[in-house]
Amino acid sequence: MSTQDQGYFTEENSADVVVSKIASTTDPRLAEVMSAIIRHLHAAVKEIEPSQDEWLEAIKFLTATGHKSDDWRQEYILLSDILGVSMLVDSINNRKPSGASESTVLGPFHIPDVPELPMGSNICLDGKGEPMLIKGRILNTNGDPIEGTKIDVWQTNDDGFYDVQQKGIQPDFNLRGVFHTGSDGTYTFWGAKPRYYPIPDDGPVGKLLGSMGRHPYRPAHLHYILEADGYETLVTHIFDPDDKYINSDAVFGVKESLLAKFDLIEDPERIRAEGAEDPFYEVVHDFVLAPTS
Amino acid sequence: MSTQDQGYFTEENSADVVVSKIASTTDPRLAEVMSAIIRHLHAAVKEIEPSQDEWLEAIKFLTATGHKSDDWRQEYILLSDILGVSMLVDSINNRKPSGASESTVLGPFHIPDVPELPMGSNICLDGKGEPMLIKGRILNTNGDPIEGTKIDVWQTNDDGFYDVQQKGIQPDFNLRGVFHTGSDGTYTFWGAKPRYYPIPDDGPVGKLLGSMGRHPYRPAHLHYILEADGYETLVTHIFDPDDKYINSDAVFGVKESLLAKFDLIEDPERIRAEGAEDPFYEVVHDFVLAPTS
Repeated sequence: MSTQDQGYFTEENSADVVVSKIASTTDPRLAEVMSAIIRHLHAAVKEIEPSQDEWLEAIKFLTATGHKSDDWRQEYILLSDILGVSMLVDSINNRKPSGASESTVLGPFHIPDVPELPMGSNICLDGKGEPMLIKGRILNTNGDPIEGTKIDVWQTNDDGFYDVQQKGIQPDFNLRGVFHTGSDGTYTFWGAKPRYYPIPDDGPVGKLLGSMGRHPYRPAHLHYILEADGYETLVTHIFDPDDKYINSDAVFGVKESLLAKFDLIEDPERIRAEGAEDPFYEVVHDFVLAPTS
Repeated sequence: MSTQDQGYFTEENSADVVVSKIASTTDPRLAEVMSAIIRHLHAAVKEIEPSQDEWLEAIKFLTATGHKSDDWRQEYILLSDILGVSMLVDSINNRKPSGASESTVLGPFHIPDVPELPMGSNICLDGKGEPMLIKGRILNTNGDPIEGTKIDVWQTNDDGFYDVQQKGIQPDFNLRGVFHTGSDGTYTFWGAKPRYYPIPDDGPVGKLLGSMGRHPYRPAHLHYILEADGYETLVTHIFDPDDKYINSDAVFGVKESLLAKFDLIEDPERIRAEGAEDPFYEVVHDFVLAPTS
């Protein structure tokens, strides 16, 4: 970063002039961040060559995106999401060693203090949708089971809503649960087959999505936070690979390694063996945690 | 721009994946603009490698900048101004042929329908400050005078405020005027020596300025819009080169060619010749208009 005064403004030296005005007393990280933002912003403007009207459209869009945001709605996070920035920041902050499970975005619907349940519990409290058995193992990168892993899981109901979006309609803590693994590192619980759902698209960001010919849907997924002593916390999803939006997640949350397998179990013997009465979906998915570095 | 599907998200291919989702039906200019924004945005994020907390700080800043904006205050234009983007957009849209006067930003204080005055009028209606005689010629790039040029001029009073910022305190149309050149292309009027003044700095943008060790001041200047048939309209300022902020305009509006010369006239003969009683400042500045292409 240059801190030498670059003189008066010209189209050619515009970024240098602006960066040169960052005082040497500026917090070094802020100076680094602002220099990068100024340089990339000027490069983008020089490539785009916006007309004055287009520039004003951008000003209006950014203002409207702020105005749409309040305590309940964060339109700037949505904008970050639909431009792939949230996923990029997530990826940069969660680089994993080879063999470890990958992360994806947390999303806005996690809540703390969800009741702990015994393995095998059914977290689907509203009885809606197709029953789904979810199970697998929590392993380290050597393939050994991790005892005492806290598994925090949440998903939409069959209408495509999280419980917190339908307070008073869905039971509290519907389709949420916290589990702890035993010495074999396995987990198992019952839920409901998740559904695709739209991100909020009635604001400026939804309008921008539409203008780009994009839809607002996220493919069906289950959310996980996995925590174990000595391992990096893993915030991730698993996705239904057969979802119609699996190749076009509005927020780019899908990674190849996060595709699970959703099997319809119709074999009467298997149905009986799991204590079920009707056919159900089964997802078997192992997670591999990276050691704390 | 690629429109071929780039598959699932990875840190490496992030921008390609997002750009590839812009539908082929998208308005070509929007597709071009969004592709450039996405690529430069991802490049900036990859260079900065923001932590999750830094990303959230950015989200909060952008939201607060929107919230600060209303019908009277446009904090996003201020942000564009202090990052040099407004000046860059102005420069891109006002490239001039060699020899023609350069443009600078319009600013928020121009008003339409200002009364037309005869040459030689005094636009300083509040009697404040040091009297200033402003004169010069409007020429074409061959050096010939342009008859019938409309000169729309406005400036701050000696307290550093425009009339519209002090309605009821300053007289209406204080330090504003519209003039038309005759066949000799000359103009002359009296005003007051302008003062430096701060851009509004009580919002998120002012806080950012302060964090970068920058002040909010604009050096003293006069605004001009020059319009003549057959010529490109010129929106510009002239600046006081002796202003303490001339090298650090908060919005980067200063260009070398816009520095005028503010001379203190103390010679009794000159004072008498101009019909004045006391010493005054004099600015002689010619403008050269580019022909309409």
